Amino acid sequence: MNRMTIPFVARADYARSADWVAALQRSMPAQRIVAFDQLSQSEKQECTVAIVANPDPQDLASLPALRWVQSVWAGVERLVAQMGSTDISIVRLVDPQLAATMAEAVLAWTLFLHRDMHTYAAQQQQRQWRALDYVRPQQRRVGILGLGSLGEAAAARLVATGFHVSGWSRQRKQITDVACFAGAEQLDFMLAGTDILICLLPLTPHTEGLLDARRLALLPPDASVINFARGQIIDDGALRAALDTGALKHAVLDVFATEPLPPEQWQWQHARVTVLPHCTAPTDMGTASAIVAENIARFLTSGTVPKSIDIERGY
Amino acid sequence: MNRMTIPFVARADYARSADWVAALQRSMPAQRIVAFDQLSQSEKQECTVAIVANPDPQDLASLPALRWVQSVWAGVERLVAQMGSTDISIVRLVDPQLAATMAEAVLAWTLFLHRDMHTYAAQQQQRQWRALDYVRPQQRRVGILGLGSLGEAAAARLVATGFHVSGWSRQRKQITDVACFAGAEQLDFMLAGTDILICLLPLTPHTEGLLDARRLALLPPDASVINFARGQIIDDGALRAALDTGALKHAVLDVFATEPLPPEQWQWQHARVTVLPHCTAPTDMGTASAIVAENIARFLTSGTVPKSIDIERGY
Repeated sequence: MNRMTIPFVARADYARSADWVAALQRSMPAQRIVAFDQLSQSEKQECTVAIVANPDPQDLASLPALRWVQSVWAGVERLVAQMGSTDISIVRLVDPQLAATMAEAVLAWTLFLHRDMHTYAAQQQQRQWRALDYVRPQQRRVGILGLGSLGEAAAARLVATGFHVSGWSRQRKQITDVACFAGAEQLDFMLAGTDILICLLPLTPHTEGLLDARRLALLPPDASVINFARGQIIDDGALRAALDTGALKHAVLDVFATEPLPPEQWQWQHARVTVLPHCTAPTDMGTASAIVAENIARFLTSGTVPKSIDIERGY
Repeated sequence: MNRMTIPFVARADYARSADWVAALQRSMPAQRIVAFDQLSQSEKQECTVAIVANPDPQDLASLPALRWVQSVWAGVERLVAQMGSTDISIVRLVDPQLAATMAEAVLAWTLFLHRDMHTYAAQQQQRQWRALDYVRPQQRRVGILGLGSLGEAAAARLVATGFHVSGWSRQRKQITDVACFAGAEQLDFMLAGTDILICLLPLTPHTEGLLDARRLALLPPDASVINFARGQIIDDGALRAALDTGALKHAVLDVFATEPLPPEQWQWQHARVTVLPHCTAPTDMGTASAIVAENIARFLTSGTVPKSIDIERGY
């Protein structure tokens, strides 16, 4: 088989392009991995596959033979929006290491809320010595929105820690020891019985603004929210209002409509908000590159394009 | 069998005496549980067992028939110090629920450090958007001091979460997937390879001041310390100095030489210290009372005093 040239396509300002090219090259020594701007005109005519991280759509449009793109990220909502209806298949990253890292993050921040770490931090500032009542994990109802590979891994960790876990997804799943819900009506029902709500949904036209004022108001008193998915899934104004009134106890936010979160945004200073810089589940370049290499090797030997996302569904 | 009168003996200022008497009475409906100051003089002559929570030694001395005392707490260093050499057996609380709650706390605060929650909180105050490098749990070396029922339960939870776990105890233990050490020399060795050090030791003459300046200095750069045992086990001045220089990255302290921690103490305001109000593993009155009731029932039917602590060893 000939050595194939595979471009890595990202925005010009993406800081980690060179690192990705190097990691991908290590995983595919038999191929030639190059940054998009290193492609010659003749090479551009021949590329059938590209590896992408938030690419410029015009760059992809300049590759006439392109059959599929492999994202190095799990979230592909920008790609879907930019490429629109297309014959080019979009393959997103499904990495067990990413699921493990996300599940650990979900466990860590659920325990942060479960153990009232934000309240104890506030008390420390006031030099206040006051032990809060301990709540057993069996009494803490944790609800996960999104039961894909990330949600399922997170649910397993929470169940093992003794929490009362429920989950909601587009299509109903069956997961041991997790109360599984699906559909709009059941979402309302689940929210009403959720003390800690964890959002792991993909951003699609169906999930944008899903957690609006009405749905947030269904959560019981003293509920908290963790958003590790995409900022746009929670209505920003509704979230702020619920936190202002104390209807919501706390929000742990790793994702925002605009990132980095601009300095003037209200979340930075809100006493009931923990701001994280989109850090909870970083892609591991090593494992991600190995998975991309496997997908590409299978394509080269058999011509099979890996399972691509459903453009209609959005993920 | 006759209805026995069993006193609950605590300091006059202990706020939860009435709650304990009620919980213990529910667990032992066939006996009469009373606060010490409700005992008649003739009843005092007959008491063979007392249930205690930091009792006044003089109160215990007024019970001439006393054969054993049951503590409702796991830590009994004050009892040991106050009762000195005595024929009265001291039985401390060994409660699987307490071990589970402590193990959860160890996991929660280990993840707090592992996930740099203190650093992200400081960054939020500065409106700083900066993701730190992710470290896998397999690369994080967690060392537990004390491998009794609490330490062993904590180790199991940490192993299940993927951490590299070692443990140190007076006598060497064998625990699956935990590197077990014992003795002073091996303590030095273990400290040198510990990123997150968790203290669960009982306070005894052997452990008081155990973590002194020399031993703290053995920890690698960026190590952190969690103390969920007793304040006196860590040399306060040495800890402060190590935090001031940055040799130690962070300390999570739930216990202090004086509790409540006085407002003028340095720990409250130190940027590298998380102060907790002795809240991580509260005794569960329900499960503790049931265990006390079992011990007393066995004593009443068979005359067997439960396994008491070793006064020499101190726990």
